[in-house]
Amino acid sequence: MSEAPRAETFVFLDLEATGLPSMEPEIAELSLFAVHRSSLENPEHDETGALVLPRVLDKLTLCMCPTRPFTAKASEITGLSCEGLMQCRKAGFDDAVVRTLEAFLSRQAGPICLVAHNGFDYDFPLLCAELLRLGAHLPRDTICLDTLPALRGLDRAHSHGTRAQGRQGYSLGSLFHRYFQAEPSAAHSAEGDVHTLLLVFLHRSAELLAWADEQAHSWAHIKPMYLPGDAPGLEA
Amino acid sequence: MSEAPRAETFVFLDLEATGLPSMEPEIAELSLFAVHRSSLENPEHDETGALVLPRVLDKLTLCMCPTRPFTAKASEITGLSCEGLMQCRKAGFDDAVVRTLEAFLSRQAGPICLVAHNGFDYDFPLLCAELLRLGAHLPRDTICLDTLPALRGLDRAHSHGTRAQGRQGYSLGSLFHRYFQAEPSAAHSAEGDVHTLLLVFLHRSAELLAWADEQAHSWAHIKPMYLPGDAPGLEA
Repeated sequence: MSEAPRAETFVFLDLEATGLPSMEPEIAELSLFAVHRSSLENPEHDETGALVLPRVLDKLTLCMCPTRPFTAKASEITGLSCEGLMQCRKAGFDDAVVRTLEAFLSRQAGPICLVAHNGFDYDFPLLCAELLRLGAHLPRDTICLDTLPALRGLDRAHSHGTRAQGRQGYSLGSLFHRYFQAEPSAAHSAEGDVHTLLLVFLHRSAELLAWADEQAHSWAHIKPMYLPGDAPGLEA
Repeated sequence: MSEAPRAETFVFLDLEATGLPSMEPEIAELSLFAVHRSSLENPEHDETGALVLPRVLDKLTLCMCPTRPFTAKASEITGLSCEGLMQCRKAGFDDAVVRTLEAFLSRQAGPICLVAHNGFDYDFPLLCAELLRLGAHLPRDTICLDTLPALRGLDRAHSHGTRAQGRQGYSLGSLFHRYFQAEPSAAHSAEGDVHTLLLVFLHRSAELLAWADEQAHSWAHIKPMYLPGDAPGLEA
């Protein structure tokens, strides 16, 4: 690829939504942890030697009520429902979400690299679709990294042709279990999954930073998961 | 007081700063957890019966680099320093912080009640001073609740004149220890302290909601901790 500028801040991201891509899902929860490159280059450890999250970390988590219902499966695994979100009087993915996101990102030294696990197939196209519907844009020099193909690619490069690595699972839970011999906490809350993603990244930080510098994609190349009927961006 | 409208959303807040009020501190980290009243009226428990945070919860944590150094004590207890914040290229408490805060609060159903432990003596006047410096305002109907005098007042009302309650500690750590027989996690990170505060609140939720409805103060009555030299708000 080599289209990417060198990212200064990495914004780890997870979305919970109403279902799978085929049903044109809507975002119900987003969580972002913004971490400066220097914190990823020098991961912190506690007194027992265990990897911990960087002390300087900005975080944004927002819940929002979709216009269409969750699939039963999505509601079960996320613990979210339209009823629950309405009871908490949450609005949908609206201008206030965009303003919060833009202001939050404007606090981060750029260029920014968005990082998500399975991001190319799910989180990035879905976020792109929601932003498109509102005519909103991320900073032009934003890049993005999907840790799923990145970790598969790194393992393939290490395995020198053996097939051992190929048989391992690459779900976020499998990776966390493999690296930390523990269960991830709060799986399938957006924030819980970003926490897990960041620890997985930190475990292989040097390799993933090098991968990002070489292989991250431009956000401008992300295609929306679907085209919202009333997207202002489509008129231009 | 009875000046307060009934709050719809409670925004739990903690600030880490460069020092104590006497040295005119600057905010270095802020964390807010926004929780709808309905979640406080019906606290959630896990399968073991332990109190857990509400599933629907919006969160904002921002780090910022002050213009003046931390006291040695403040740096030690918060784990923050100007060097660390500068290395992560954090700007100060600036317009982007205000925009993020305003957009985040605009997602919450109002009126909003800010909740902080020792808020009247520290967090509220300090936030007020930083906002005043930038000419920024919170929504006009914002109210605020300090859990320190509230819990002291509730215990006094229960104790019917005995002095037993008066001798107990009311630091956030002491309350958490008393209610949950455990140490709070991540003390003196803004987010860790808000987590602890929210659990303490949930433990006495019904009483504190009633107290807030009766006794919360209007944000408009909060006086800034100090008057910044260049505050636009002072000219008016």
